[in-house]
Amino acid sequence: MLFSPIDVRVREVGLRDGLQMIAAQVPTEVKIAWLRAEFAAGVREMEVTSLVPAKLMPQFSDAQAVIEAAKALPGLTTVALVPNLKGAQRALELGVDKLDFVMSVSRTHNLKNVRRPREESLADLVRIVHERDAAGLKGKVLISAGLSSALGCSYEGQIEVDEVRRCAADLVAAGAEEVLVADTVGYSNPQKVEEVFRAVMLETGDLPVGAHLHDTRGLGIANAKAAYDCGVRLFDASLGGLGGCPHSPGASGNVVMEDLCFLFESMGLRTGIDLVALLEVRRQVAAALGDVPMFGALSRAGLPTGHHAVA
Amino acid sequence: MLFSPIDVRVREVGLRDGLQMIAAQVPTEVKIAWLRAEFAAGVREMEVTSLVPAKLMPQFSDAQAVIEAAKALPGLTTVALVPNLKGAQRALELGVDKLDFVMSVSRTHNLKNVRRPREESLADLVRIVHERDAAGLKGKVLISAGLSSALGCSYEGQIEVDEVRRCAADLVAAGAEEVLVADTVGYSNPQKVEEVFRAVMLETGDLPVGAHLHDTRGLGIANAKAAYDCGVRLFDASLGGLGGCPHSPGASGNVVMEDLCFLFESMGLRTGIDLVALLEVRRQVAAALGDVPMFGALSRAGLPTGHHAVA
Repeated sequence: MLFSPIDVRVREVGLRDGLQMIAAQVPTEVKIAWLRAEFAAGVREMEVTSLVPAKLMPQFSDAQAVIEAAKALPGLTTVALVPNLKGAQRALELGVDKLDFVMSVSRTHNLKNVRRPREESLADLVRIVHERDAAGLKGKVLISAGLSSALGCSYEGQIEVDEVRRCAADLVAAGAEEVLVADTVGYSNPQKVEEVFRAVMLETGDLPVGAHLHDTRGLGIANAKAAYDCGVRLFDASLGGLGGCPHSPGASGNVVMEDLCFLFESMGLRTGIDLVALLEVRRQVAAALGDVPMFGALSRAGLPTGHHAVA
Repeated sequence: MLFSPIDVRVREVGLRDGLQMIAAQVPTEVKIAWLRAEFAAGVREMEVTSLVPAKLMPQFSDAQAVIEAAKALPGLTTVALVPNLKGAQRALELGVDKLDFVMSVSRTHNLKNVRRPREESLADLVRIVHERDAAGLKGKVLISAGLSSALGCSYEGQIEVDEVRRCAADLVAAGAEEVLVADTVGYSNPQKVEEVFRAVMLETGDLPVGAHLHDTRGLGIANAKAAYDCGVRLFDASLGGLGGCPHSPGASGNVVMEDLCFLFESMGLRTGIDLVALLEVRRQVAAALGDVPMFGALSRAGLPTGHHAVA
C-alpha cells in the first residue's frame, strides 16, 4: 500500500477542522484511534491538530501527543495548522512534515480569524520560511499556505478573483511551497471554482495547488470535480463532513471524506483509500464522538453493487 | 414571471417520485398546497402523480384531483408518470400536458418495475403515441420517455453505454419526443454521466434530453453539473430530496430541488425560481409531511450573504 501509485490525494482534516467546532474535549485516545484507523484504510496525509494557544482552543492542548502518534505511522504526512510564527516554531519543534499556514483573502476574515491584517500574516510567513531554513529543515518540512475565504466570505460576500490571484502571488513570493485555496464558508459553485483556481495557478507555477472545500450549501462535491478538472490533485475533506470555522458565521462542514473518495474512485481514479475500511472508520468515530452531527450519503447508501475496491 | 426567459428548467418530481416512497397517504390538500406554492415560487413543470392502478399504489388514488389542481395554474406543464398504455389512456383523458413513459435499460429492473420485458414496453409506447395522435392531441400533449437504470442498476450493476444508446434509439423510433436519462439508483459519477448522455444525444437529434438523477451516494449535484456541461437543460429534482424507487433496493432520494436550483442560480443561470420562496415551500411541506426525512444543505445553511434573487 505504501508505494502504490495514486491519482489524487485526499487528506483528512477532520482532526483539526472538524474538532475545532466541537466544544467538548475529544479524548486524545479517540483522536489517536481515529488517525490510526484512517491510516490503516490508506489515508496518507492528515492535518492532525492546530497549533494555536491552548487557552484559545483547549481542543488542541494535546497537540504534542497527537503529532507523536501520527509521526509513528510510516509514510504518513503529518500536518499541523499554524496561525502565526509562534505556532510554526512549535510545529518545527514537534517535527511535523508540513505546516499549514493560513491567510484570508478577505481582510475582515483575516482580522477575525488570526487577529491581524494580511500584511502581518505575509510578514510572518517570510519569518516562518526563514526559521525553517535556518533549522536546516528545507526539503524536509514543507510550508503550505492556505488562502482562506478565497471563494466568498460571510462578512464581505463575494471576493474578487484578482484579489485572490494577488494574494496567491504574495504567498508564493513569501516562500509558500504549496497553496491551498479554501472555500471557508461554502459560497462557491463549480464555475467560480474554475475561475479562481485557474487564476491562482497563473501565479503558482510548478507548486502544488490544493482545494479545501466546504459543503455548506451542497455544492462541495461538484466544486471538487471542477477543481479536479482544473488540475488539482490534493483535496481536503473530513470524515462525515465534520468541520466549520468558529470565526465565520454560517460555515458548516468540510466536503465529506468518504463521498469525495467515492467520487474519485467511481471515476476510476485511485485515491489509495479502501472505501469499505473508511466507512468502518466513520462508524467508529461517529460512535466515539457521540451526538456530534455527521453528514454524507455514502455511509447511508453503502457502495453500489459491483463496486470493486482499488487494489 | 410567466414569460421571463430561463436558461435551465428544473422540474419538481417529488409529488410523484417522492410520495411513492411514503407508505402513508398524503392528504390531497397537502399535495395541492405544495404544487400551488411551488408554482408561486416560479416552478413551471411538475410531475404531479403516477397513473398506476390505485390498488398497487394507493398514494396516487387522488390523481384526478391533483391533475385538475395543477391544470388550473396558467403556464404550468402538468406531467404524469405512465407505466403502460392503460395509464397513458387515463393521462390523455385527464388532460395532462406531458406523459412520462418509463422503460428500464436494465432488463431485470424493467421486469420488476413494470412487470414485462423491454420489447413489450416499446410496443406499448408505439400504441401510446398512436392513441395520442388519434385523439388529435399531437403537438398538444408531449410524450416523454424515461430511460430508467441508464447509469447503473441495483440488480445488474453496471449498464453498458451501448445498451443505453440502443434503448434511446428504440424510444425515439417508437415516437418519444423527449428522452429522460435516469440514474434511478444513484450509481453514476460525473464521468459516466458525460459518457452516457453524449451517447444518448447521438440518437436523439433535436429532441430535448433531460436528466433524472438521484443523490443516493452524494454525487447528484456533481452529476447534474456534468449533464449541464453536455447540453442538458431539463432536470428533475424533488424538494428536500424526497424519493426513491420501490423496486430498486438501496435507491434513495432525488437530487435536492433547492440545492440544484442553487447550483444553477449561483452560476448565473436563470431557473425562473425564487430560492427564498422555494425554501419557504420546503419548510411548509416538511411540516405537512411530519417525520418523513428530507435532505439537502441549502435549507440548513441558508443563502450566502449578498445572494440576489434573479428577477
